This record gives sequence, structure tokens and C-alpha cells, in this order.
Amino acid sequence: MHTIFELQQLIETAIKKIEYPAIPSKLYEPISYIMRLGGKRIRPVLLLLSSELFNTDANEAIEAALAIETFHNFTLIHDDIMDNAPLRRGQDTVHIKWGVNNAILSGDVMMVEANKHLTNLDNSILKNALHCFNMTAQGVCEGQQLDMEFEQRTDVSIVEYINMIRLKTAVLVGGAMKLGAIVGGASDEDAEHLYDFGENFGIAFQLQDDILDVYGDPVKFGKQVGGDIISNKQTFLLLKLKELVKDSDLVLLESQYSNIDYPAKIESITNLYNQYKIRDLAVNEMKRSLDIAFTALEKVNIEAVRKNELIQLAESLIDREN
Amino acid sequence: MHTIFELQQLIETAIKKIEYPAIPSKLYEPISYIMRLGGKRIRPVLLLLSSELFNTDANEAIEAALAIETFHNFTLIHDDIMDNAPLRRGQDTVHIKWGVNNAILSGDVMMVEANKHLTNLDNSILKNALHCFNMTAQGVCEGQQLDMEFEQRTDVSIVEYINMIRLKTAVLVGGAMKLGAIVGGASDEDAEHLYDFGENFGIAFQLQDDILDVYGDPVKFGKQVGGDIISNKQTFLLLKLKELVKDSDLVLLESQYSNIDYPAKIESITNLYNQYKIRDLAVNEMKRSLDIAFTALEKVNIEAVRKNELIQLAESLIDREN
Repeated sequence: MHTIFELQQLIETAIKKIEYPAIPSKLYEPISYIMRLGGKRIRPVLLLLSSELFNTDANEAIEAALAIETFHNFTLIHDDIMDNAPLRRGQDTVHIKWGVNNAILSGDVMMVEANKHLTNLDNSILKNALHCFNMTAQGVCEGQQLDMEFEQRTDVSIVEYINMIRLKTAVLVGGAMKLGAIVGGASDEDAEHLYDFGENFGIAFQLQDDILDVYGDPVKFGKQVGGDIISNKQTFLLLKLKELVKDSDLVLLESQYSNIDYPAKIESITNLYNQYKIRDLAVNEMKRSLDIAFTALEKVNIEAVRKNELIQLAESLIDREN
Repeated sequence: MHTIFELQQLIETAIKKIEYPAIPSKLYEPISYIMRLGGKRIRPVLLLLSSELFNTDANEAIEAALAIETFHNFTLIHDDIMDNAPLRRGQDTVHIKWGVNNAILSGDVMMVEANKHLTNLDNSILKNALHCFNMTAQGVCEGQQLDMEFEQRTDVSIVEYINMIRLKTAVLVGGAMKLGAIVGGASDEDAEHLYDFGENFGIAFQLQDDILDVYGDPVKFGKQVGGDIISNKQTFLLLKLKELVKDSDLVLLESQYSNIDYPAKIESITNLYNQYKIRDLAVNEMKRSLDIAFTALEKVNIEAVRKNELIQLAESLIDREN
């Protein structure tokens, strides 16, 4: 088995080796651009790790990993258009650099590129892998749709929110792990267990994101702490606070939504989070998802020692500070 | 073998039977909407016809036909955003009805739906079918990119134009026919011949579109005759005229681009077309593509009589008046 670091290198090298057509250059340059912006490569690494659980060399799963990473980056291009986001990993987003129409079309052709990677898989697993990929891609689109709709609503429940982040974020983690298992030659049961691990781990990962936005170390976080608070983003923390807040605290909270003194707004809402112990509640919810994830992983019918690398990666991602 | 009419019924019935998920409704309603706006269903009918050339019942190729029609309609949604088009088949475009963000995302999930249809194909042809579909989809995206870039250029050559319509329009016709052949169990050679037929027929079809826009019967055409002239669209006719026009005629042509008296503009540019015999030149170019198409069809190694239905359809489409 490879180490996490080796798997990351494997992915980076494979991405650098991809040769997109030279023309039309404006169609393909944005693909190289976003694919090489970096990032943690969490999904493809998890996919490769998943394949290696079943005594398969990660190199055999590299096309599946590229499919998942390409699809993920395609969704980033289109999401950034929809969210009107100027920056991605500190750089101009594709629609800022090449215009919205180009960003739509480069995203479209990336979806084709993702499918081309998948089509390189062995015939014996192709249908199974495609089915997994299609279900995953569909879920991600549904999640983005719900995310957009929730921005227009003030009555989103915690259950709806968890379902949204499940679709938008966690389904892709689950799908990546299942795809790795399929390529690795896992039984259908083990592939499903790894899907369950990935999906629930993905929910925990996103909840940790919500927590870090408020409670992250400003030096290590890499983004502005309180960014979600400034934009009134309906995270688990805000939705939980809205569920619990009462009387004068409710009046205070509602008065803050339109506060343009951002340091004061962050301080005021963070105080409310502290007062209502929202951080503990979010950590509990995160741990609940993690427990489900690790229970699913336990069920995977392989030597326990082979799971260590995956467990370590998962724990380090949850304990991350950015 | 089925008749063209029966194949159209088969497609319409199959489209009506597709059940998209109910929620998120804003994600899936646009798909039903555009899929049911109608149209000639040329691509899926050609695909089914192609499969029946090889003694395969069209019903076995219906999933491939739905993949192609779904993909085609996905490109219409995204193209309409990029072209800022308010109407499609006389109805509101998806981005007008549901907003741009929704139209992007519904388009994305349609691409997944197209792939889901493909994944239903038999394992024995799946990889071959996917390869054909992916190459086709990639070509269509490249064609749309070139089309957008040409709008910003004044020096587009006829060769570049033919290559653009080949990618944007004809590759999908070729891909549909090849996919039908693959499902029908054709040899690789016959599948390629049908691709060549489709691609060259597709170019002829688009050239006929350019001709009809100027010389169509206003009663039968269904759209405004001269629409391309009004919008200064760089069709084969305009590019050919620009190649040939000289002296005072060149001055006249260039003065017309900004003429907002549309009836006068249409009359003036049509007169130039007539004077330089542009219609004949366009018809010649169309016939050249048709000859290549029919030569490829002749090479398909089946009884000549089995090709009659396809030849009739192709001829009726070229002789169409709208």
C-alpha cells in the first residue's frame, strides 16, 4: 500500500500528464487552469486508498481518480458562476478570467473529459463504475440546486440542511470511495460500506468546515474567520442558533443580519453561539456522523490493519485547522 | 423495419415515458419542459434507422436514441444562455423561464441523464458506445466555442466556417448514426461509413438552413426569412459574398451591416447574393457534402434495398422548406 503522501504525488503527476487538445484554446485552457490550482485532492486520494484496501495497486485506479477530480473541478467552475464568486483558491475564478459563456462551456466539456477517463476502465467493471458515477453526479447537482434554493428561504430546517450538504458535498466523497472499491475488486457489500463511510465522513467534514469558519485559528485558517457570519450563510451553526434563540437574543440576532460593521457582527453572533453552546452541538452532530462512518468502515470485510491509513487520513482531516 | 413515422412515434412515446425525479422540482421541470417542446427528432430517428439497417429492432436502440436526444436538448439549454436567446421553438427558453443559474444546473444534470441512458446499453457494446458518445459530445462543445469566437471576428474563412458547422451540428448527426450502427451490431467499418454519412449529411443540412433563411418561402419557413441577414450572422452565404464582393458592392455591403431598416437591409443584401450567384454556390457546396455522404452510405455492406428508408429521409430533409 502507498502512503497518503505517495497517493497525492500520484494524483498530481497524473493531472500534470493529462494533455487536453490545444484548440480551441479558450475551451481547454480553463480546464488546465482549474485542475492545476491545487487543493487537497481529498476525493481522488480517498478513491485510491479505497482501491488499495482490496490489494489493488492505486495505479490501476488512477483513471477513476481523474474522473472524480475532473468532475469535482467542473462543478467548481459552474458553482462559482452561480455563486458569483470572484476567487477560487486565492486566484481568479474561471468566469472572471474567461467570461461566463466560456466558463459554462469549459465546464460542459470537463464533464465529457470526466466520462472519457471513466470509459478507460476495464470492461468487467465499466457498467458498475458508470452507474456509481452517474448517481454521484446527479446527487451533486441536486445538492447545488437545494443550496441555491435555501439562499432564498428563511425557514430551512437542520434536517433539510444536513440533506443538502449530504448531496452537495458528501455524496461525492461516498461516490469516490465506492468507485475506488469497485476498481479494487470489492464485493458489492464492501463497496456499499465504503460508500456509507464516505458519505457520513463527508457530512462530518462539512460540519467541521462550518465550525472552523467561526472557531478556526485566524493564523492557520487561511480564509477570513467569520466569513459565513458576514454573509449570513445558513450553516449548521446559524440554523441551530435560530432553532434555540429566544426573546431579546432573537431580536439581537435579527438586528445583526444587516449590520455592516463586520467585526462587531462577528463578535455579536459568535457571543450568541457561545451563549447557546452551538459549538458543542455542532461537534456532537459531527461526531454522530463520524460514528456512523467508522461503524460502516468496521464492516468492510478485510484485515483491520489495512484500514489504518484511511482511518489516519480521516482523523487528520477532521482535526484539520484549515 | 419501421417507417420514419413509426420511429418518430417510438421516440415521442419513449420521451413521454421518462420519469425524472420530482424534487428538486426546479432542477427537473426544465428537463421535461425542453424535452417535450417537440422538434423533428432528426437525430434519434436517424440513430434508430441506422440500427435497423443491421436487422436490429429499433426498440433495442431506444436508450441510445434517448441519450442523443437528451444530450442535444442539454446543448440547446446552454447554447440559449450563451446566445442570450429568448425563444426556442416559439416558447420561452429555459433561462428566461427559470433563470440562468437554474438553466446551467438543469443542463448539467441532463448531461448526467444522457449518460444514464447510455449506461443501460448492453455490456458487450458499452465501451464502444461511450467512446462514440464522448467524442461526439466533445466535438459539439468545440463547435459551440468556435461559433462564439467567430462572432467576434471579421476574418472567418469558408474553410473555418465549414469546420465549425461540422463540429457544432454535423458531428452529432454522425455520432447518432454511428451509435445506432454500434447498437445494431454493425462492423467497425460500417459504423464508420455511417458516421461519415451522418457528418457530411449534417453539413449539407446546415448549409440548406443557411439557404432557407434567405430563400425560404415566407409562408412555409416558420421563422422570419432574412433573420440571419438582420443579425449579420456569418453564414456560408455571407462569407462567400465577402470573398467575392468588390468595389462599390463592397461599400454597399459594409454600409448594410448597421442598417436598422430591416426590410431594406434584407432586400439589399439579397440583391447582392443574387448578383454574385451566391445561392448557386451554396447549393453546389451542399451537393458536394451530400455526394460524400451518399458515397459513404453506398459502402455500407448491406442489401441496397435496406438503405431506401434512410435515403428517402435524407432527401426529404434536404428538400425541406422549414
